[in-house]
Amino acid sequence: MSITYVPGGVCAAKGFSAGGIHCGIRKNRSKLDLALIAAEDSCNAAAVYTQNIVKAAPLLVTRAHIQGGKARAIIANAGNANACAPEGEANALRMCRAAAVALGVAEADVLVASTGVIGQRLPVEAIECGAANLAAALTQSEVGSAAAAAAIMTTDLKKKECALELHIGGVPVRIGGIAKGSGMIHPNMGTMLCFLTTDCAISAPMLENALQAAVRKSFNRISVDGDTSTNDMAIVLASGRAGNAEITSQNTDYAAFCEALRTLCVQLARAMAADGEGAKHLITCHVRNAADEEKAETIAKSVISSSLLKAAIFGEDANWGRVLCAMGYAGAVFNPEKTDVSFHSAAGEIAVCRQGRGLDFDEGLAKEILHEHEVEIRIDLHEQAAPGAQGCCECWGCDLTYDYVKINGDYRT
Amino acid sequence: MSITYVPGGVCAAKGFSAGGIHCGIRKNRSKLDLALIAAEDSCNAAAVYTQNIVKAAPLLVTRAHIQGGKARAIIANAGNANACAPEGEANALRMCRAAAVALGVAEADVLVASTGVIGQRLPVEAIECGAANLAAALTQSEVGSAAAAAAIMTTDLKKKECALELHIGGVPVRIGGIAKGSGMIHPNMGTMLCFLTTDCAISAPMLENALQAAVRKSFNRISVDGDTSTNDMAIVLASGRAGNAEITSQNTDYAAFCEALRTLCVQLARAMAADGEGAKHLITCHVRNAADEEKAETIAKSVISSSLLKAAIFGEDANWGRVLCAMGYAGAVFNPEKTDVSFHSAAGEIAVCRQGRGLDFDEGLAKEILHEHEVEIRIDLHEQAAPGAQGCCECWGCDLTYDYVKINGDYRT
Repeated sequence: MSITYVPGGVCAAKGFSAGGIHCGIRKNRSKLDLALIAAEDSCNAAAVYTQNIVKAAPLLVTRAHIQGGKARAIIANAGNANACAPEGEANALRMCRAAAVALGVAEADVLVASTGVIGQRLPVEAIECGAANLAAALTQSEVGSAAAAAAIMTTDLKKKECALELHIGGVPVRIGGIAKGSGMIHPNMGTMLCFLTTDCAISAPMLENALQAAVRKSFNRISVDGDTSTNDMAIVLASGRAGNAEITSQNTDYAAFCEALRTLCVQLARAMAADGEGAKHLITCHVRNAADEEKAETIAKSVISSSLLKAAIFGEDANWGRVLCAMGYAGAVFNPEKTDVSFHSAAGEIAVCRQGRGLDFDEGLAKEILHEHEVEIRIDLHEQAAPGAQGCCECWGCDLTYDYVKINGDYRT
Repeated sequence: MSITYVPGGVCAAKGFSAGGIHCGIRKNRSKLDLALIAAEDSCNAAAVYTQNIVKAAPLLVTRAHIQGGKARAIIANAGNANACAPEGEANALRMCRAAAVALGVAEADVLVASTGVIGQRLPVEAIECGAANLAAALTQSEVGSAAAAAAIMTTDLKKKECALELHIGGVPVRIGGIAKGSGMIHPNMGTMLCFLTTDCAISAPMLENALQAAVRKSFNRISVDGDTSTNDMAIVLASGRAGNAEITSQNTDYAAFCEALRTLCVQLARAMAADGEGAKHLITCHVRNAADEEKAETIAKSVISSSLLKAAIFGEDANWGRVLCAMGYAGAVFNPEKTDVSFHSAAGEIAVCRQGRGLDFDEGLAKEILHEHEVEIRIDLHEQAAPGAQGCCECWGCDLTYDYVKINGDYRT
């Protein structure tokens, strides 16, 4: 299947416009804090949510509004999570209403998300005042997607946007998305804030299946700090404007769409990990020759989540003992005596452990390899994969740095 | 039951001597690196081990030597973990043999432990050369225990020693211990290195039961960094010299011994958490009014393990939203809408969250409370405990600081 990356983020697919403004939730006037994504018509829609028991109010409202598998717009703010906050659901509904009035659509067709500090009342009045300006800022150009992507950033340093094009039944179909990190990020979540649009014609149930499958293999395979947020949510809206025959079953079109959606989500997930709070390195852990993918994932997740390994990568120290240690407490059974470990980056590659024992290696070369921004830890379990099983998996994380401590030692005040 | 703390660590109980020397494993000559604890006669013995799949060689040797429930001595080194290292088991056996020869006992009566860097060959020759000096350094005075406690330290800043006396059947019985932290520490482990001695007369099976119960409620309730080590081990030796009627069943004497052993282990576990790598604060999370103790423990462990919460405490920031967040992904079911949270320390107490919603609170007072070295996060779930169930639990951790990153960014080299 041929996939081409295209510009435009959530505006790449036909039928969508987006925008972002500063409405006053964040104190710094130069930072956008309110985003809107709007579809020309009603879309098929699906969402996944955090598995945290403490769920922010906007998630509850979104879950109610999306029940019929339809939606028309997404409004989202940064600077306040509207979680554990007074009047949480009432204020999330007021956000939807403000967007609905400005767009001339039904309140129940608007989905809502928030990100920022937990436990403080959402200053919803600022959002209500800004809604008309926000609707006026909507545009189908890529500027709109970029503004929306900027308006959901908190401690993120970089905007996360991606879009791609594939062909389904000879028809060009686009999928685009924006997302934000960058703390309280850990596998086993619904996911972080991620808004996806597509012009693919696909039924709501198939859209939901595709989203769940993509999230499982992208956002659920990253970690910044092991903390699963109260506000994580991924939403996809499908306008159907591409003109392909609607996907209503698990046919080859569905498979192509899933593959493309997963590819897009992996790009956004990697961008989230790379821009983790305080991060200096993007760490990929690639486990192969495991008996099955689940085991490979369990081990890779454990490695990229280890504070000690993360601190070692920050120090550009090829401390492979911490890799073995994190593998050992992952909860998967494997034979350490058969395990190989190597480090890879644009600067080269180096084997550091064979069959569970350390190799003599060139510390200078190891430092050079780990000095690169993107580093990969490759683990070979030398197991036989079950017939038909894929015994490999990649997970993504970032290093643990002074800046992570600094950012989170005084985030609230 | 009346328990009195006494000096002497592992030398407090009758029948034990201890010592520590510098033999050359650690480069810094002023740091001890080889410890020995010896009993006058064969002791009943029990041990628990890390649940990490990657187990260091000394654990395998100790497990083999302790199989009959008897042991006479423990030799331990710092500076090298003898994990994933060439000739691991052979070198662990050579350590036992060196101690056995120096003490004139059987090799199979010696238990062995190592702590330090993973993956490098243990310089066992230095240990063999030092064994005679080590045996000569043994003393029953508290100086011996202090030297042994110093000789198992790695990144620990403080020695961990504790001993106490209780009465069993009118006879004074003592239990003492030494332990070390201070990175790669996380609940759900066998435990860190901890060596306990007692003169209590107690059968090997009952000793093992008592040790497992004590570890579960002490070392398994702390976390420094979420990394369960490859080398964790707790060993207890019982000389039987106190003269009490031997404990061979779960009678009241056993209950008294268990309570005392748990009290001792909690002291050592708290000391480990307080001296966690880079730590500035000891954090206690106290959950109460849970349906059962297991739920209280699950939630308390999750809170003290959260990187975000740990960074907030470092910043002395009463960021209770992170407490709620860590509770929510703990894996236990509870009602956030009924949850109260407050912060406590020697400087006072402050309620910050009632029924899942933030309270207006005095930020100045909160800072003062969190400025203390020991801070407690108290959580009330307002659940009804099942009849006979104890719905509360304390777990202990430390804050996440610049120094943690510094220590672990370049530990190996």
